[in-house]
Amino acid sequence: MSYFCERIERMSAYVPGEQPETSDVIKINTNENPYPPSPAVMAAIHAVREEHLRRYPNPTSKPFRCAAAKQFGVTPDMVICSNGMDELLRMLIQACCDATRPLGYATPTYTLYSVLAETIGAPTRGVPFPADYSLPIDALAATDARLFLIVNPNSPTGTFVPIEDIAKLAKKVQGRAIVGVDEAYANFAKDNALRLVNQCQNVIVLRTLSKGYSLAGLRFGFAIASEPIIAMLNKVRDSYNLDALAIAAATAALTDHAYAQATWQKVIDERDKLVPQLRKMGFAAIPSQSNFILATAPNPGADVIYHGLKDRNILVRWWSTPGLSDKLRITVGTAEQNTKLVNAIAAIIAAGR
Amino acid sequence: MSYFCERIERMSAYVPGEQPETSDVIKINTNENPYPPSPAVMAAIHAVREEHLRRYPNPTSKPFRCAAAKQFGVTPDMVICSNGMDELLRMLIQACCDATRPLGYATPTYTLYSVLAETIGAPTRGVPFPADYSLPIDALAATDARLFLIVNPNSPTGTFVPIEDIAKLAKKVQGRAIVGVDEAYANFAKDNALRLVNQCQNVIVLRTLSKGYSLAGLRFGFAIASEPIIAMLNKVRDSYNLDALAIAAATAALTDHAYAQATWQKVIDERDKLVPQLRKMGFAAIPSQSNFILATAPNPGADVIYHGLKDRNILVRWWSTPGLSDKLRITVGTAEQNTKLVNAIAAIIAAGR
Repeated sequence: MSYFCERIERMSAYVPGEQPETSDVIKINTNENPYPPSPAVMAAIHAVREEHLRRYPNPTSKPFRCAAAKQFGVTPDMVICSNGMDELLRMLIQACCDATRPLGYATPTYTLYSVLAETIGAPTRGVPFPADYSLPIDALAATDARLFLIVNPNSPTGTFVPIEDIAKLAKKVQGRAIVGVDEAYANFAKDNALRLVNQCQNVIVLRTLSKGYSLAGLRFGFAIASEPIIAMLNKVRDSYNLDALAIAAATAALTDHAYAQATWQKVIDERDKLVPQLRKMGFAAIPSQSNFILATAPNPGADVIYHGLKDRNILVRWWSTPGLSDKLRITVGTAEQNTKLVNAIAAIIAAGR
Repeated sequence: MSYFCERIERMSAYVPGEQPETSDVIKINTNENPYPPSPAVMAAIHAVREEHLRRYPNPTSKPFRCAAAKQFGVTPDMVICSNGMDELLRMLIQACCDATRPLGYATPTYTLYSVLAETIGAPTRGVPFPADYSLPIDALAATDARLFLIVNPNSPTGTFVPIEDIAKLAKKVQGRAIVGVDEAYANFAKDNALRLVNQCQNVIVLRTLSKGYSLAGLRFGFAIASEPIIAMLNKVRDSYNLDALAIAAATAALTDHAYAQATWQKVIDERDKLVPQLRKMGFAAIPSQSNFILATAPNPGADVIYHGLKDRNILVRWWSTPGLSDKLRITVGTAEQNTKLVNAIAAIIAAGR
């Protein structure tokens, strides 16, 4: 007899990317925005008083929900806030899935999805992306999944599926499954699925301030969907899931949209410069609509380049798993960081010859 | 066919206490500490830089775990941190309970427990407290529960069960159930269960900074248990469940133990003054080891006094549920707040005659 559920005993925890404690490293391994958050964020934090910390915070992050409603043209009751997007994903999977209600997604994708399904004993239905990384609409709809999660742009590929394809999937599974569009990286893409929440009753768009708003350290996610979907998610949400500081900082960040947008454009410009540089060195880089690039490495191979960069205090992401072990996922840094990266890779390749 | 699991459709969300947006109210309804947090907390928050917000935080709240390990004489791997104690309770119930593994507790208790069990479809085994509010050890152990949650001091009664009784329950159910001791209010009690985590492999002690450290607005909980229990809980914990600001502020608060302790003593002194004052006015107040008092109201009744106080900008807690509808739960405030409360109640009683 065990103290814990068998599925918990059996499962492995999700392994997050490396977070070094020192700051003398070029950290382009977990898709942070290379630019600092808006000055309005620090001002909002410094305006929080002892009394706001002593008392419980607003239980529904109302100031943020009102700001988001205004910005995205929805009602505050169409918005829910969460402690990072991870909590949002957990709530959605917990509300929609169980042992008889599978979770569906196209693979490869964010590996946390299957871990979260495992924690509640829900089966998963993974459908491989075709070679062009288009959405396998019919194959997904043919599964018995009751919730689909589509990261768009996808991680770890950086590829983008047209919003119309997501709408097609939502229509095909209407009445039996919700389609969650994980837009963690949408601020760096040419389009997003927000318009679908008014067109489709079964679409929920998930966002985070981690990447677009340079606030990975703050843990703030939110979702937009029809009011009945949000009401159901609120049932599994912890009462006070966001603290007073996070609510104040996140509201300030979202409101200073112009600042954030300027960082997105800089990242996009740098990305579009970095891709041809990588290709010139022999990388096969997948076209990215995100703030990172997944690229198959030339000789001496992804693992050697990964370790060579690490020795030079440059941290990128490498997975030893099949299908990914020949690739590196590189977060787009500042112009200066990207130049250092390119030079370091060139040196490693030259030494490996 | 529904988009959500039937148990989610069917359930009602937990209803938290009222959180008024104005600050001109004497808010003694949700057990906040009436004194502000340590000045070290604000200093720690102001020391957080843009760079700490831009990057992901430490995934395991390591600075806090090290400080707690030092203070409580355990290892850092015996400590887990959570986004308020609510998240900790959710993780524990998710890891230990499911449709075939019930959750047990003595009633009345914190009503969130049954709501959390419902979200994952776990049955509950509620055993009524006897009239003296002692722990019904044998009756609890006779159930088939795989996790017991004991709030000590209990909410909403404020009563305290001897730690030896909790140890007896843990011994009786050893090998088949975990005993979680919810010590949200232990800072105001004469004893606590921390020593049990070294004596019993199946005991976990849950704490929060909300009450004892005046940080309800920060959302920071933690638990101490044997390393295998903590390792299992980490599997269901979101990777970055605490943000950079919360980790810094919580570590500062815990470290300034002397400051917090001084507030506990002031609250205890005020509590022990308030109880006889309430009794003098005709309340039947249960002896409290907490920072609140549950008391059966005299004429004109709990609901009338609750509304009368609210009209006078004093907020206490009143539930319309059977067994509680004749009682008020009053958080111990500052000396000044308590005087205003007593005078207001006296006026309401006089008017009601």
